[in-house]
Amino acid sequence: MKKLNIAIIGLGNIGCYLYKYLNKNKFILAKKNNCIPNVLYVSARNRKKKRIIQFNKKKWLSNYLDATKKKEIDLIVELIGGSEGAAKKLVFAALKNKKHVVTANKALIAKYGDQLSKIAEKNRVNLEFEASVCGGVPIIRSLKEGLIANKINKVFGIFNGTSNYILSSMDKENKSFKEVLQNAQKLGYAESNPTSDLNGEDVAAKLKILSSLCFNSFLNDNIHVEGIKDIDKDDINYANRLGYKIKLLGYAELIGKNIFQRVHPTLIRNSSNVASIDGVLNAVIIDGNPVGQNIIQGEGAGPAATTSALISDISSILRGNIKFPFSISNKERKKLNFKQISERSFSAYFRFNVIDKPGVLSNITQVFSRNRVSIKRLVQDPNKNKRSSSIIIITHPTKDKSLNKIIQTINRKSYVKKRSKLIRINDE
Amino acid sequence: MKKLNIAIIGLGNIGCYLYKYLNKNKFILAKKNNCIPNVLYVSARNRKKKRIIQFNKKKWLSNYLDATKKKEIDLIVELIGGSEGAAKKLVFAALKNKKHVVTANKALIAKYGDQLSKIAEKNRVNLEFEASVCGGVPIIRSLKEGLIANKINKVFGIFNGTSNYILSSMDKENKSFKEVLQNAQKLGYAESNPTSDLNGEDVAAKLKILSSLCFNSFLNDNIHVEGIKDIDKDDINYANRLGYKIKLLGYAELIGKNIFQRVHPTLIRNSSNVASIDGVLNAVIIDGNPVGQNIIQGEGAGPAATTSALISDISSILRGNIKFPFSISNKERKKLNFKQISERSFSAYFRFNVIDKPGVLSNITQVFSRNRVSIKRLVQDPNKNKRSSSIIIITHPTKDKSLNKIIQTINRKSYVKKRSKLIRINDE
Repeated sequence: MKKLNIAIIGLGNIGCYLYKYLNKNKFILAKKNNCIPNVLYVSARNRKKKRIIQFNKKKWLSNYLDATKKKEIDLIVELIGGSEGAAKKLVFAALKNKKHVVTANKALIAKYGDQLSKIAEKNRVNLEFEASVCGGVPIIRSLKEGLIANKINKVFGIFNGTSNYILSSMDKENKSFKEVLQNAQKLGYAESNPTSDLNGEDVAAKLKILSSLCFNSFLNDNIHVEGIKDIDKDDINYANRLGYKIKLLGYAELIGKNIFQRVHPTLIRNSSNVASIDGVLNAVIIDGNPVGQNIIQGEGAGPAATTSALISDISSILRGNIKFPFSISNKERKKLNFKQISERSFSAYFRFNVIDKPGVLSNITQVFSRNRVSIKRLVQDPNKNKRSSSIIIITHPTKDKSLNKIIQTINRKSYVKKRSKLIRINDE
Repeated sequence: MKKLNIAIIGLGNIGCYLYKYLNKNKFILAKKNNCIPNVLYVSARNRKKKRIIQFNKKKWLSNYLDATKKKEIDLIVELIGGSEGAAKKLVFAALKNKKHVVTANKALIAKYGDQLSKIAEKNRVNLEFEASVCGGVPIIRSLKEGLIANKINKVFGIFNGTSNYILSSMDKENKSFKEVLQNAQKLGYAESNPTSDLNGEDVAAKLKILSSLCFNSFLNDNIHVEGIKDIDKDDINYANRLGYKIKLLGYAELIGKNIFQRVHPTLIRNSSNVASIDGVLNAVIIDGNPVGQNIIQGEGAGPAATTSALISDISSILRGNIKFPFSISNKERKKLNFKQISERSFSAYFRFNVIDKPGVLSNITQVFSRNRVSIKRLVQDPNKNKRSSSIIIITHPTKDKSLNKIIQTINRKSYVKKRSKLIRINDE
């Protein structure tokens, strides 16, 4: 039987899990793919670090870049992480030297995916990155193979387990953002520095990759990104009262000939399928023609789910299934118009925290009417101390720039006690 | 660029949709797969039938079996349907003559899949059947590729859109089975003869195929099958009161070294994800290691969703991605133990319709206790005419054979007015 020689570079939790998995499942994978996956080398920053795996000294490469030079190596699995530095050097060198590459590195692919895919295509090797987007959800292979027939209009979903865990725990346990975050860190659902999970950057990187695969376009940085750090318990409670959940969603949609890419907290109807996806789960929803709507959901992160994704990529290469990294040749990929969110229309949820005095409500509604934004629902609640009120307004669909203008105008008023809130609504 | 010559046999709704799709999307598919899909021949029972497509006379084969003999044909798409007769003849002859086969025929694959896959493997051609299971849900490709890393313990879900539409409409619109079925037929969601959709046979065929793919086993007929025809509005209302929905689910599970295959109406918690999947949608849930739980959902039927599946199979063949039809070589497929459902334990819902007289309730509970089945909840409701009562009992988990013994025993009692009901519960 044929054999494919593999180097695994990066031996953190994921690298070690993958190494163990490949050791244990070498023969069943060989049987399924008609080719033996043979881990010839491993490398990482520190050889002597304590790890859950043991390997023969001969397998260790003291210079990780040697993996790209050794003739006998066919495939390099990059698990270093980060869009620059060692990971970037390794993947560029590997593809240039005609090695297949499998990576879990969303930051690298979101930033250099176009350049890398050109080298891979020229050298007729695979560059696969299923593990970079929503670990255990086989979405990239589904887009490139299972749903290959479809013209896709829209891809959206829950792409960050940490944010989803925090929002759904705040909702279910009625706890504050801070409490829930601390708990998530204890449980290993949030990193000690959770910035990129909470500010939307992690979702943005995944969305760029999906967007490019769905629309056959090049990667594009025109993307509106907001995270969940300003969502508080009151927002979640008001959302519930109005029949909504708050979720951090990423969206890429083709409207006419324009693509809108956006990541932001979204009010989504209680009864919708996405509203019921709680905890660290991820879900990707595809609207395509002819297939209609497809939803794929599963665990988004962790060594086990990520290994499932890495093995699907490795298996594809074992079978000799050479494909374009972004589903289609680079010369066929399109330069599409990526538009600013300001031109897109939304219904929105506003929350104003104001001094309780005559004339405030009428002033606020005047600002809405001057901006030609029509109000669908309004709730006014006195706050506990009785000196201030919360005013919640749900609007009819309006251009995003008008919604933002309202927030800016009202935030300048002297009757405003706390920064006003604007959360977009998905009413589909 | 390379070219793959295709014959489409069977020109019903699906065949015509596929023909149109391939005409329109030939070049984009060629670009994605590096090979042109070229429809050289078509055939069907009646050439002169009115169809939505037009084709050159030269494309018509007056004897459909000629497609298997023509040297220039590489791939035959079988869309005749049925496990015997023309479809069977065509697929056997095609594989024997070293033609690739793509089919949407679940009955044929569930019955002859093992024999057919042996011929395909021997002749090194593809036999692909994504479209045979839950049309728009790319589950087979996910099992064979995206989730290839996983040892699967369980596959279950909603595999029949007609039944799911009927159950969810009875629930939402509070209408009778008969009313809802008539409406479904009007809307094209149920066939004029809906027997195989309603009696569970359609689900059973799909489940056998999935089971075989998940557990690397041969196809096996040991499967418990019940449909939805005995579910009435009262059951749905009682289920709601108790916090459940009723869904027709198919299950295949590996417990120890035994596989249980079963299709039956199931009470499933209101809050579970599956409970929220309504209408004609299908959903497949996979429990695997290392991936955890994966849910894939989409449209289960119709020419559009089915074409999406057919094209994914055709594309795989265009890319020259030769694979074993059931994911692994026939000599590696296992003979596993397929056990009777009687040995499996369930919680269950019982509904008894009895004459309202003293001693009945105590006699019923005695039967439960004699069979060592412990009762978790009991509801007794007088019926409108006051002469009879409904008694609803929810049990703790018990072997299926004990549950059935209770039904048999109580059905023989003179106080029973209508046949008693037993619906299994999924409490996971």
